[in-house]
Amino acid sequence: MIEDKNQQRTALSDLGEFGLIDHLTKHFQITQKSTVKGIGDDAAVLDFKSKQIVVTTDLLVEHVHFDLSYMPLKHLGYKAIMVNLSDVYAMNATATQVTIAIAVSNRFPLEAIEELYTGFEAAAHMYGVDIVGGDTTSSTTGLIISVTAIGEVDKKDVVYRSGAKPNDLLVVTGDLGAAYMGFQVLQREKEVFKVNPNNQPDLDPYTYIVERQLKPEARKDIVKLLKDLQVKPTSMIDISDGLSSEIIHLCKQSDVGAELYENKIPLDPQVISTCEEFNLDSTTIALNGGEDYELLMTISQEDFPKIKGNPNLTVIGYMTEKEKGMHLVTRGETLVPLIAKGWNALKDQ
Amino acid sequence: MIEDKNQQRTALSDLGEFGLIDHLTKHFQITQKSTVKGIGDDAAVLDFKSKQIVVTTDLLVEHVHFDLSYMPLKHLGYKAIMVNLSDVYAMNATATQVTIAIAVSNRFPLEAIEELYTGFEAAAHMYGVDIVGGDTTSSTTGLIISVTAIGEVDKKDVVYRSGAKPNDLLVVTGDLGAAYMGFQVLQREKEVFKVNPNNQPDLDPYTYIVERQLKPEARKDIVKLLKDLQVKPTSMIDISDGLSSEIIHLCKQSDVGAELYENKIPLDPQVISTCEEFNLDSTTIALNGGEDYELLMTISQEDFPKIKGNPNLTVIGYMTEKEKGMHLVTRGETLVPLIAKGWNALKDQ
Repeated sequence: MIEDKNQQRTALSDLGEFGLIDHLTKHFQITQKSTVKGIGDDAAVLDFKSKQIVVTTDLLVEHVHFDLSYMPLKHLGYKAIMVNLSDVYAMNATATQVTIAIAVSNRFPLEAIEELYTGFEAAAHMYGVDIVGGDTTSSTTGLIISVTAIGEVDKKDVVYRSGAKPNDLLVVTGDLGAAYMGFQVLQREKEVFKVNPNNQPDLDPYTYIVERQLKPEARKDIVKLLKDLQVKPTSMIDISDGLSSEIIHLCKQSDVGAELYENKIPLDPQVISTCEEFNLDSTTIALNGGEDYELLMTISQEDFPKIKGNPNLTVIGYMTEKEKGMHLVTRGETLVPLIAKGWNALKDQ
Repeated sequence: MIEDKNQQRTALSDLGEFGLIDHLTKHFQITQKSTVKGIGDDAAVLDFKSKQIVVTTDLLVEHVHFDLSYMPLKHLGYKAIMVNLSDVYAMNATATQVTIAIAVSNRFPLEAIEELYTGFEAAAHMYGVDIVGGDTTSSTTGLIISVTAIGEVDKKDVVYRSGAKPNDLLVVTGDLGAAYMGFQVLQREKEVFKVNPNNQPDLDPYTYIVERQLKPEARKDIVKLLKDLQVKPTSMIDISDGLSSEIIHLCKQSDVGAELYENKIPLDPQVISTCEEFNLDSTTIALNGGEDYELLMTISQEDFPKIKGNPNLTVIGYMTEKEKGMHLVTRGETLVPLIAKGWNALKDQ
């Protein structure tokens, strides 16, 4: 019928997630005076004179981003909000509102959707944001959640991905790799459960990493901390796809290189012990695991005294001239090029 | 495992779409000073001092909201933006930005997604809005599109659903029922195509109604027209679910009743002839068809001289005291209660 019979086919997996976004959006034009920043950072920035507002959106799809066999719906709702607030904080902004759209199939009873909303509300309450809109519709198969978060920031305080300079320090909050290892543990327990449904899993040794997977927290506290310390990062991004992938984003958008020190990467003892148990390399997990929702930033060397010794902030490397490339400096002092192995949403389907 | 084994089950279809949204959101609290209006209107209103901004979001799911066998992807992209801009205009606001999130399965080649984006861009260009953000991810089955639109409006100009007063005139833009009849024609041709794929459908007699289904236009022009005429509606809503359902929204939120005159409902001749061909009642189609994306508003009687004779605006009834209820006054001068038969997204799945 009216269908376009275009025979040209390029597999989406050839481009990968970032390639596809870039391909589709690189020639978009900005025409509104109020649009300060469109696509290309953690959130858009709009200027409505007195304050700039930031807007960000994320879509979570069942079987792609979450598995309800081990993700309680309340936690899922909470996490869906966190994922978006994390992007707002990565702009050095205050999150103020969210809108939520969900599509559900009728295999979900009302009580299940209520559980999901309990999670949305708990997150909104905890982080002081208002849920100001949404859409609820049906899906033919799984559950789909789309959240848009809005925040505000003084024009002078906004931090983009593109401001890093050579010699700036590379700084990360919290610790890395825990969410991914929590996922590994939950996956294993799911397999055990399939074989023996009466088995009661002992998750005690994995409390921290399982919590990091099921109930991540966005780093609202860091935006406040930076203000208190009077530090404005030169660039910032949240860690959703893995440290390696995010460092590459900062480097590419700032036109710089980076050296990351393996022995400086902050790891929780539970991540180290679980990596040993699973026979995985903890550095690889920290680099590529993703879903940490920590903040990665660069700060000017002159700000170092202000952050020195702060338990929330770890210096893990420094930025270089672009020509020097992006490298991991291993414990053995070998230089290994950083590559984005982050979770590729389009390759696995 | 950790799954909640809550055995209580209430079918979502028992509540219907509006019931579910209301049920889930009625106790949400507003804590941000900048949130002027949250859930409950076409869009949220946020006050960032100099201007108020409006935000609205909609989720479109394949096989629920669209059928790619007769909806070209470019048109789908265009329509996805229109659906959202229509909500912004229904606040009497100017649309300024949109964010777009999509989930696609790998049955779509790149060219298909490009087609979709061509539609997004065409709409953004035509309506002067910037696409400022988004998310592209994978889905295990169909295509999912989530759009959030943002607009701005002077505080004094914003129009809610809740401002209608008894004796206000009920006014609609354009004509009604065409998008639904276009859908009927496309459905029929799809069935013919299944039987005989070589059949070339003659859509000439249906050009207008098919276009209304495939390429709806949001009424940006009406916001400007109202400004030029110096008319501020007392309430306004966009017609996405059908005239009947939208009148009920205005009445409930304004605490008034309404009388709608059957013989005043604006219908295109193609809608009338196609209704005859399909043996459908054109009034029923106008009341319940949906997807018209026209604006329904109430205006004070004293503004009547300003809109009288304007071809874009048709007076179709007036508001009454709440106690008088909500009725259609038929051509035979019988009073028939209005009921919301609008498209119920959760009943059919």
